[in-house]
Amino acid sequence: MWIYLNDRFVREEEAFVSVFDHGFLYGDGVYETIRSYGNSIFMRDQHLARLRRSAEAIGLVIPERDWPSLLHEAMERNGVGNDRTDAYIRITISRGKGGIGLDPALCPLPTVVIMTQALKGPPADRYRTGVSLVVAKTRRNLPSALDPQIKATNFLNNIQAKREAIAAGAFDSVLLNWEGHLTECTVSNLFFVRSGTLCTPALSCGILDGITRGVVLALAREAHIPVREGQFTVDALIAADECFLSNTTMEVMPVTRINDRPVGSGTPGPLTRQLHQIFVAQRHKFYES
Amino acid sequence: MWIYLNDRFVREEEAFVSVFDHGFLYGDGVYETIRSYGNSIFMRDQHLARLRRSAEAIGLVIPERDWPSLLHEAMERNGVGNDRTDAYIRITISRGKGGIGLDPALCPLPTVVIMTQALKGPPADRYRTGVSLVVAKTRRNLPSALDPQIKATNFLNNIQAKREAIAAGAFDSVLLNWEGHLTECTVSNLFFVRSGTLCTPALSCGILDGITRGVVLALAREAHIPVREGQFTVDALIAADECFLSNTTMEVMPVTRINDRPVGSGTPGPLTRQLHQIFVAQRHKFYES
Repeated sequence: MWIYLNDRFVREEEAFVSVFDHGFLYGDGVYETIRSYGNSIFMRDQHLARLRRSAEAIGLVIPERDWPSLLHEAMERNGVGNDRTDAYIRITISRGKGGIGLDPALCPLPTVVIMTQALKGPPADRYRTGVSLVVAKTRRNLPSALDPQIKATNFLNNIQAKREAIAAGAFDSVLLNWEGHLTECTVSNLFFVRSGTLCTPALSCGILDGITRGVVLALAREAHIPVREGQFTVDALIAADECFLSNTTMEVMPVTRINDRPVGSGTPGPLTRQLHQIFVAQRHKFYES
Repeated sequence: MWIYLNDRFVREEEAFVSVFDHGFLYGDGVYETIRSYGNSIFMRDQHLARLRRSAEAIGLVIPERDWPSLLHEAMERNGVGNDRTDAYIRITISRGKGGIGLDPALCPLPTVVIMTQALKGPPADRYRTGVSLVVAKTRRNLPSALDPQIKATNFLNNIQAKREAIAAGAFDSVLLNWEGHLTECTVSNLFFVRSGTLCTPALSCGILDGITRGVVLALAREAHIPVREGQFTVDALIAADECFLSNTTMEVMPVTRINDRPVGSGTPGPLTRQLHQIFVAQRHKFYES
């Protein structure tokens, strides 16, 4: 595998960062995960814009690069992002190497990493059976402590919630915020359907401004599906008729069990299936080469 | 500089971790900073015990090592921890190298790093002038999201608060918790004196169980100084007669300005100076070779 590291492509076996990289010492960095459909990168500019917003929020200046060209070169070198294989891309920018201490000025040069591999999407039958969630004891990060809108390499909050899901034999965890409202799962946004209305936690609940979430909301509005972004409790989720997750790699993934009880009929709901069909039919509108 | 990396000592120029190390990708790791006085390591076993507690809290098993021997070898190889130079030691244990994803099982082997260098303590005149603090807008991590008692390499919360201090021209920031109570500074615990009582936020406010904090509290009780661990507001801090910080490298550091206003007389207070003197006189009781 070829990895872009700082200023050139190197083999995976040579893709190392110093133990003094503040990404390693402090999780001081930001990242994006992006996908392609064939050679086309989904919502490329939105991902790059969010990377810049995340960096700006922690006072990190993203080094200048011709990002679209780099992403394509990364895909080509690894034989992905073509007719046969969609690509998974992760851009990581850390504060860089520096002496011990929290001051960003200790690190003169950010570290840039681009990883690309074949996208491993969920198996097809998972869309038919749906996945299971548990409500985690771990609460989502307090926005005033570390805003979930910053896609940072400080991921222990999510890892703790993921560990709860694994321990419970579930696919993933839903995290509540500081006041008990629904937020999101460890790497995806949460939607549910109640009496025909598509509901999802508002950004103000302390969630990532998911790019697939935005596309799903836009497509739902276009299809005249009633949409509500708001504050919701676990009880609303438990009482939902349908539930699904959205993220870059899963698109729209039905949730059929929460806390070991079926959601609605226990099978993917009609609005969930409709939205996934619309997403698959319309996603080419969001491709950027 | 010699760095202990996984199973051997390597030169700093060779001390690298993979870009797939989950310490770099997710900040998935724990650490300790330890100091020596000459050849004697301060509170060695307490630091090692806290490292194990931090690791256990994130489901990470610390690899077996003869830690005391390793710490001494690290000091010797770098010519520190001797009659001439006290040593600063940082042990970092990350989840290790693994495929992309949050599941700890992706990483079969934790990464172990020991860095050692000459301790750069604060300049002597800083103890005479004291340091300045600002109350940060950034709140301390919610304990139910990521407990501040876990000394983890997820440090962006503290880095955001440190950036506020730097922007304000202050030495450091005080962080409040989710309900507005005082917690700690970015790398130290907070104490203040009100009418002869030594006050410090309780662990339940969401702070690190600081090892120097514990020693200061024990020494204060031994000296029959009234001590109160509790919930305190910014107003109580602003109205304090004295204020100081504690951590491994600073020991007891007077705070003489908060939010650009003097604390008490604007000079290090008598109880602060008394406690630092007691600390210096008694610290040898906490040495472990």
